[in-house]
Amino acid sequence: MKPPAGRSQRGMSKVTCQISMSLDGYIAGPNQSLDNPLGEGGMRLHEWAFATESWREQHGKAGGERTADAEVAQEAMQGIGAHIMGRKMFGGGDGPWDEKWKGWWGEDPPFHAPVFVLTHHARDPLSTQGGTTFTFVTDGIESALEQAREAAGEQGVSIAGGANAVQQYLAAGVLDELHLHVVPVILGAGERLLDDIGDPVLEPIDVIASPAVTHVKYRVLN
Amino acid sequence: MKPPAGRSQRGMSKVTCQISMSLDGYIAGPNQSLDNPLGEGGMRLHEWAFATESWREQHGKAGGERTADAEVAQEAMQGIGAHIMGRKMFGGGDGPWDEKWKGWWGEDPPFHAPVFVLTHHARDPLSTQGGTTFTFVTDGIESALEQAREAAGEQGVSIAGGANAVQQYLAAGVLDELHLHVVPVILGAGERLLDDIGDPVLEPIDVIASPAVTHVKYRVLN
Repeated sequence: MKPPAGRSQRGMSKVTCQISMSLDGYIAGPNQSLDNPLGEGGMRLHEWAFATESWREQHGKAGGERTADAEVAQEAMQGIGAHIMGRKMFGGGDGPWDEKWKGWWGEDPPFHAPVFVLTHHARDPLSTQGGTTFTFVTDGIESALEQAREAAGEQGVSIAGGANAVQQYLAAGVLDELHLHVVPVILGAGERLLDDIGDPVLEPIDVIASPAVTHVKYRVLN
Repeated sequence: MKPPAGRSQRGMSKVTCQISMSLDGYIAGPNQSLDNPLGEGGMRLHEWAFATESWREQHGKAGGERTADAEVAQEAMQGIGAHIMGRKMFGGGDGPWDEKWKGWWGEDPPFHAPVFVLTHHARDPLSTQGGTTFTFVTDGIESALEQAREAAGEQGVSIAGGANAVQQYLAAGVLDELHLHVVPVILGAGERLLDDIGDPVLEPIDVIASPAVTHVKYRVLN
């Protein structure tokens, strides 16, 4: 019997990561900062999504294109019951929290689901409009995954980023699928996605090509 | 009017590079040596080709599979009138030549065409069985390209590798197409293909997916 879309064959929530990567392997450019969280050139990795109707709709914007890329952007958001992200992706700098910082995504973050933030510094949960809640997890990636699976119920868990969080879940052998959007851009420097992950066995299971980006889904044989 | 297959729109031989790259960007593994020219794990990047009938036939072997990968391997060899490679790909170590060294490919190299080897050390041309000739070029990449175009006539010129040769031709703005075979293998270290190439504009023009590898052709907008 085929498990539901959000479930892995182990009967638990499927754990996926979908992320845009430059052809030379970066998910952010050099000189990341609070003012420029994706680093120099990093926004170029996401232009394919910004152009789509489905991405714009999820971010409360009108217009956009209905292309193969739009279908990919749409699918990327479906069936996800909880997200996990590293602290740097939530933002606000290092060290103890400045609780005025509510994350990069404004008053209505695009997740519309529970988000678990990996951090070394405790903080009370944060609820925002549109159903996104941020829970701050200080006891490691396994705890965060357990909480995310609990929150996701029948649905899947998405590792939202950044590179370090993805690397940790890949290295821990709990990522079921890696969905790469390979963007024909050379950043030359920045934050690489696939460093320090050991030698996982990856199997391409689906490829969708557009003039802007090549979407490749890999199953991780853990 | 459409130019012949081997010609770029500038009316000269089209200059292409087709090369297998790991998902983390390497075309050879760590610890390359005379005994192990592709480095640790580097052979894993070529297994998709070794399995095909077309690759085996070109290398004088029987058997092999007729798959989408076989068509790609076949096409990669068609319409190429001359090859250019770096000295390390020809092999034999650094410094002045030991003329006993005839290259990695045995007595019947798989090129069956003129090959121009970039080197700092002069050496007389070398002819082998099956139509492969090696010419050693000491006056730079532009000279090698000019000689290769002359030799190729109506056909195309292929930059065979290694990384440094590809990088130099990319950076010089003379590569017309980059055909990457992206292999779902993580090497973790070794020789990266896409370092130090500036910020070329790349346009995906064709994608062929198989269970073993994702073939993506990029046009380079020089």
